[in-house]
Amino acid sequence: MRHLLSTRDLSRDSAVELLDVAEDMADVQLREVKRLPTLRGKTVVNLFFEDSTRTRISFEAAAKRLSADVITFSAKGSSVSKGESLKDTAQTLAAIGADAVVIRHHASGAPQVLAQSGWIDAGIINAGDGTHEHPTQALLDAFTIRRRLHGAASRGRALDGVRVTIVGDVLHSRVARSNVWLLDTLGAEVSLVAPPTLLPVDTDGWPASVGYDLDDAVDAAPDAIMMLRIQQERMDGGFFPNSREYSRAWGLDPERFARLRPDTIVMHPGPMNRGLEISAAAADSMQSSVLEQVANGVSVRMAALYLLLSGERPSSSEREVA
Amino acid sequence: MRHLLSTRDLSRDSAVELLDVAEDMADVQLREVKRLPTLRGKTVVNLFFEDSTRTRISFEAAAKRLSADVITFSAKGSSVSKGESLKDTAQTLAAIGADAVVIRHHASGAPQVLAQSGWIDAGIINAGDGTHEHPTQALLDAFTIRRRLHGAASRGRALDGVRVTIVGDVLHSRVARSNVWLLDTLGAEVSLVAPPTLLPVDTDGWPASVGYDLDDAVDAAPDAIMMLRIQQERMDGGFFPNSREYSRAWGLDPERFARLRPDTIVMHPGPMNRGLEISAAAADSMQSSVLEQVANGVSVRMAALYLLLSGERPSSSEREVA
Amino acid sequence: MRHLLSTRDLSRDSAVELLDVAEDMADVQLREVKRLPTLRGKTVVNLFFEDSTRTRISFEAAAKRLSADVITFSAKGSSVSKGESLKDTAQTLAAIGADAVVIRHHASGAPQVLAQSGWIDAGIINAGDGTHEHPTQALLDAFTIRRRLHGAASRGRALDGVRVTIVGDVLHSRVARSNVWLLDTLGAEVSLVAPPTLLPVDTDGWPASVGYDLDDAVDAAPDAIMMLRIQQERMDGGFFPNSREYSRAWGLDPERFARLRPDTIVMHPGPMNRGLEISAAAADSMQSSVLEQVANGVSVRMAALYLLLSGERPSSSEREVA
Repeated sequence: MRHLLSTRDLSRDSAVELLDVAEDMADVQLREVKRLPTLRGKTVVNLFFEDSTRTRISFEAAAKRLSADVITFSAKGSSVSKGESLKDTAQTLAAIGADAVVIRHHASGAPQVLAQSGWIDAGIINAGDGTHEHPTQALLDAFTIRRRLHGAASRGRALDGVRVTIVGDVLHSRVARSNVWLLDTLGAEVSLVAPPTLLPVDTDGWPASVGYDLDDAVDAAPDAIMMLRIQQERMDGGFFPNSREYSRAWGLDPERFARLRPDTIVMHPGPMNRGLEISAAAADSMQSSVLEQVANGVSVRMAALYLLLSGERPSSSEREVA
Repeated sequence: MRHLLSTRDLSRDSAVELLDVAEDMADVQLREVKRLPTLRGKTVVNLFFEDSTRTRISFEAAAKRLSADVITFSAKGSSVSKGESLKDTAQTLAAIGADAVVIRHHASGAPQVLAQSGWIDAGIINAGDGTHEHPTQALLDAFTIRRRLHGAASRGRALDGVRVTIVGDVLHSRVARSNVWLLDTLGAEVSLVAPPTLLPVDTDGWPASVGYDLDDAVDAAPDAIMMLRIQQERMDGGFFPNSREYSRAWGLDPERFARLRPDTIVMHPGPMNRGLEISAAAADSMQSSVLEQVANGVSVRMAALYLLLSGERPSSSEREVA
Repeated sequence: MRHLLSTRDLSRDSAVELLDVAEDMADVQLREVKRLPTLRGKTVVNLFFEDSTRTRISFEAAAKRLSADVITFSAKGSSVSKGESLKDTAQTLAAIGADAVVIRHHASGAPQVLAQSGWIDAGIINAGDGTHEHPTQALLDAFTIRRRLHGAASRGRALDGVRVTIVGDVLHSRVARSNVWLLDTLGAEVSLVAPPTLLPVDTDGWPASVGYDLDDAVDAAPDAIMMLRIQQERMDGGFFPNSREYSRAWGLDPERFARLRPDTIVMHPGPMNRGLEISAAAADSMQSSVLEQVANGVSVRMAALYLLLSGERPSSSEREVA
């Protein structure tokens, strides 16, 4: 694997392979061998143009468990604020010898630009770009569903026929986009449920059905229901009277949660707004996989770094001339 | 030792054991073996909700010398500012595999909440909570006094009969609180000297005598005198005309310093306001232990991390299910 | 080498030795042995009172490739903002066991103060102080020129007779100052070209010729031309109408670039203002060494850390007493 930019261009085989490598990583951690020498001497740069402590820490923990060196490059207070372009930043990281760049950027498409530019030959991992994609989040979600359904017999499996419902602010959610593409690739059936104002206009082309009623979605008894985080600041946009209204119509409140199948997996990418899009009853239940998602995130990111960095890279001599 | 939350609940034996392990750590550093493999593969998270570069660096240096991986989680710009609860943060750190969490928090009691919650099974070290406690500071102070008094013969000893005077803003000082409890446990006699407005109302229950006159305290010839940092911002509170007044009445000025016994230990937790609560003459004298305190801080924190992490922890498999 | 504070007091032999060690470091990196055990157990503190992500990352990468522990101490949000003096900060770092301190400070002379103070016996590297010096930048520039001119036969050579033109805001540039002294020491002939308002008043004492016309300087066919970064905020100072004027008179635009010798090295310390002091045509040409400069920066900083830390240091026992 050269880069991990999007789940849309990930083949079924590649996706399953990554999930299987993540199983290996999870196994290793279970055996308390918390540090593998695999990426010793490799340099992973966390290039974060947006704050995201959780995702940054998850990648940092993943890289350190593989013995890579981690350098964090926060755009705040960096040369970027002096007007440096993405090109110059990328070339600097190349010159410094970055083997992988984990990039989070407010602009959709920035990781793709980085990967296709020729400015840097490091492996690029998209850690969230604008409202576009967040592929490792989708992969850890798929990993979590697969593990819940198949346990120790997960390896080699996809998610054929699994019914996943994604609820909430799909419009602004890169998590939703990455999940839709990946889940479809893995054979799952995806339903989106959201207020019309929080749905993108182009969902016609998406491999997902669309609904507007959460109660109907709950009664359809999905295998997994994924509650998206609602940004408090969207509330000021005028499309809803207030958060109580949102919670009433689109939140997984105790009553709806109780109507779910007892084995429906309740998912959330975090951080949760308890009492808004998800009730504490649902979030803290046995059906909730919220904490597993975080733990699995480290395994999935270890797998992604491993697959990117154990492959053939241009040598550093070529890199210097580039 | 499961957690290190407070000196109040530390037994005399536990405290002496920790100081003895810190002696071992200091010895190792003297022998220029600056890195021990002891905590290889362990992950220590510095969870700082308040800025404190000195304390953070001290813990970071301590963890790295024991070969632990260190991840710094600053609450600024983190999900916390998006409204994430301490519970969610803790669960995230648990899921990521933190073995110890060093927490500084503006709310008194936050480390206790973390330790008793069941949200995370990592060892918790209180690195300062509100105006409550700062146990590693008190331990390094005790370590410093013991070393000054007994040198190479320190091991196994407590501080029976040692007379320690703590001067200044006791009201807002977690350092003072942690010292009062620990020093008493170790057998020392503690005096507090402060303006009435900077004393807590509940000192009746404290194992310490209270005085209001620094000159009397100086003339009582203590074994150690600990000058607390006065926050400049307290000066605006209206209880003192200005910092010159404070310095005149409550500062260890050159004249008072000269009246101390020549072997009285002059202590300060840093950073000092030279010329305010302590004069340069006192701070830079041979009697001053300010720099030893900083150096000893690394040894004491190595000891705390060692004692927390070399014990039996729940396995990571249990952790995942938790 | 005890400290690296300035290129002005660097002897020709010391400078050439450092460049030769940097060649060794670059060779090692070429062989994909990206991590040397040389400085295992040593602690390098990055003490940055000014933001500079690029320089900080370069030193961090250099220290990590030599297996040192790196602790970053950013003055923002640190005790410094609570009024802690440089002295107290230095003593804290000494007590924590820093072996080298890489300091960037807004005040010219701060690194010298640190080195001569006796507050800390760590090796001090000046990573930029006010408008004074930035010695590792000059060393990486000299390294880059030497490599371009002599390739694999660089070792042992100085830059005798090499003609280097430095263009732009010399007044505020520590890069220019460090380059002038080092290039002269290495035998190069230095010309400064700048608007009179951006030249220091004391250039009479500098080992460099001064000119005011970039076109003349270009036609003089230098071996290397170094374009300094112009701070956008200087533009508001009233000495130039606007950035278009600056670019027209003092920028390496495509036309001037085309008139240079085809082997003139085009240099810039970064980050570049493309279209202002340097055109994209020049910056991205084969003649541009901008990316080599960044890559060479890591090798030069590895060499500096190696030379400072592999020498004899006072033992930690002496340090504790200090």
